[in-house]
Amino acid sequence: MQTERIARVLRAMEQAGLRQMIVSDPQSIDYLTGVYVEPFERLFALYLSADGAHKFFLNKLYTVPKTSIEQVWFTDTDDAVALVAEHVRGGEPLGIDKNWPARFLLPLMERLPGTPCRLASACVDGVRACKDAAEQELMRENSRINDEVMRRAAAFVREGMTEREVAAYLLEQYRALGCEGPSFDPIVSFGANAADPHHMPDDTRLRAGDCIVLDIGGKKGGYCSDMTRTYFCRTADARYTALHDLVRRANEAAEALVRPGVPLCELDRAARELIAAAGYGAYFTHRLGHFIGRTEHEQGDVSSANTAPAQEGMVFSIEPGIYLPGEFGVRVEDLVLVTATGCEVLNKADKHWRCIG
Amino acid sequence: MQTERIARVLRAMEQAGLRQMIVSDPQSIDYLTGVYVEPFERLFALYLSADGAHKFFLNKLYTVPKTSIEQVWFTDTDDAVALVAEHVRGGEPLGIDKNWPARFLLPLMERLPGTPCRLASACVDGVRACKDAAEQELMRENSRINDEVMRRAAAFVREGMTEREVAAYLLEQYRALGCEGPSFDPIVSFGANAADPHHMPDDTRLRAGDCIVLDIGGKKGGYCSDMTRTYFCRTADARYTALHDLVRRANEAAEALVRPGVPLCELDRAARELIAAAGYGAYFTHRLGHFIGRTEHEQGDVSSANTAPAQEGMVFSIEPGIYLPGEFGVRVEDLVLVTATGCEVLNKADKHWRCIG
Repeated sequence: MQTERIARVLRAMEQAGLRQMIVSDPQSIDYLTGVYVEPFERLFALYLSADGAHKFFLNKLYTVPKTSIEQVWFTDTDDAVALVAEHVRGGEPLGIDKNWPARFLLPLMERLPGTPCRLASACVDGVRACKDAAEQELMRENSRINDEVMRRAAAFVREGMTEREVAAYLLEQYRALGCEGPSFDPIVSFGANAADPHHMPDDTRLRAGDCIVLDIGGKKGGYCSDMTRTYFCRTADARYTALHDLVRRANEAAEALVRPGVPLCELDRAARELIAAAGYGAYFTHRLGHFIGRTEHEQGDVSSANTAPAQEGMVFSIEPGIYLPGEFGVRVEDLVLVTATGCEVLNKADKHWRCIG
Repeated sequence: MQTERIARVLRAMEQAGLRQMIVSDPQSIDYLTGVYVEPFERLFALYLSADGAHKFFLNKLYTVPKTSIEQVWFTDTDDAVALVAEHVRGGEPLGIDKNWPARFLLPLMERLPGTPCRLASACVDGVRACKDAAEQELMRENSRINDEVMRRAAAFVREGMTEREVAAYLLEQYRALGCEGPSFDPIVSFGANAADPHHMPDDTRLRAGDCIVLDIGGKKGGYCSDMTRTYFCRTADARYTALHDLVRRANEAAEALVRPGVPLCELDRAARELIAAAGYGAYFTHRLGHFIGRTEHEQGDVSSANTAPAQEGMVFSIEPGIYLPGEFGVRVEDLVLVTATGCEVLNKADKHWRCIG
């Protein structure tokens, strides 16, 4: 499986005119080799070469099994960047993946003045974006769990609770359902707090009439889920429920278009036009969605700037929202898996508004 | 306070021959401006200029108060890197801090071919390394809490428990003691698992005779604690307790040397020589310590490669260890604060070995 994945990356590199690249994202390295290391601030890299002479760069602190790929070891006091520079083919373009930090990249470029470094993350991330059958089943199972956590959360929430209490409850549910943990810190936003799409849970107490945004996900088997539902506490203002209906319809309009070949920007446009036509375009302040898999946000987005076509096996979120500063927020988010003929919406939790608490 | 911090960074930049730099570490930006944003994969940067015309680069998704620093806004679909390139002074060296990822740095360098980018993280990180009085008190208080969590953990552990159970208990204690959470995933390693310094808690059950490595820390008020103690379950093998004594003495030998002006590599040497003299040098596989503050590992380490002198206000760990693969591990770690005349060991928990469980 890993050999095939590396072969796909090498083909993508060839198309990009690259015969060597450095992969540093620990999730990408795990995906390509089955070796997972959490390097914290230390250097950890996989060098891929068109001639098959791949190399690992490893700190002696890492616990790594024997691999068919050559292992180049260093200690905390060695100059790890100098070691990488020695092993790279100088004078030939060198691909670099997305997250390699300046503290490694700039010194490497200084040591290799005749070696142009090029951002080549797409060679790896494009392969990761299309999930194989085993990955798809993990994503499906995780969204099933996420639906169940959402069901429990909606039943648990009561007027007077704080956002933090609900967030703590959510974390317990992921553990109880066999997850390694959440795939990100749960977003629990009451009332005006929901106008900030990334509001972090605080001691705000739920009051009747508040909207309740729950943006949650778990991680199991190394893969992530991510879903948002918006409810109301006990009563709901008709203006807000109309916005909820609008956002849900935008979500459904985009999901209805998903199939291989559709430009991702078209999905964003479908949702955005519906919201804009109702006069709320300025309050839908973010892209429609993001890719997801081993991390809750993988490279790739569903936005007006991404003209790339959807491909079978891709999994991404569809999450339109409307945010009225100081007042209210609503977001409705599912994960979708692109199938041969359309898409499978991985989240089954009802997305209509309702009153809870 | 923030104005003074920025002034210190500008002075450091001047000494490095820089009149402009990009700061992207959200913790550094918070430290320098009081504005905290979790940008996830989006661009978030503070541009510092010697002429005082600093600028924020902000995605419209971020919630940011009004600031005296100019705010340059963009959306998910704008080319944020192009925007940064427009605002930077071309043709003049541009400092970059440690973590700016390749996906922003490489496209920026392409757009600014005549503008040399230089790693200049030390200009910010050197300022952050020396904690002011308020930060010192936060670090002290956090280590007091960490001592208490260690005390509770040692009382809680019982033969037959799994590492995961102990880790879950630890997480609860930080919350109960008012922390935002742990400062890193707690390390709970039993027996041979402890030979991997970064072993993650699993379902291994504690057996009599096992060593128990607890490497734990909490976060409160935005600052971190970090401490390691090693115990034994019910009985202890004399060979292992001798190694524990050795590691504790290495820890104490290094701590005894801490004072302003001492080269950090000398601390590492003192601990390492003691362990090497006993024949275990090859089993002390990592540097002696790391800086800490807003994150559990801040830039700067205590290793044979770092000849920089300790300065008043610095806080770092002193954590020698010995790791016998497949068998046993021991680490003894405190945080120390460099004072005018020596150091304050922030952790008071007894570091001698004892049997628990």
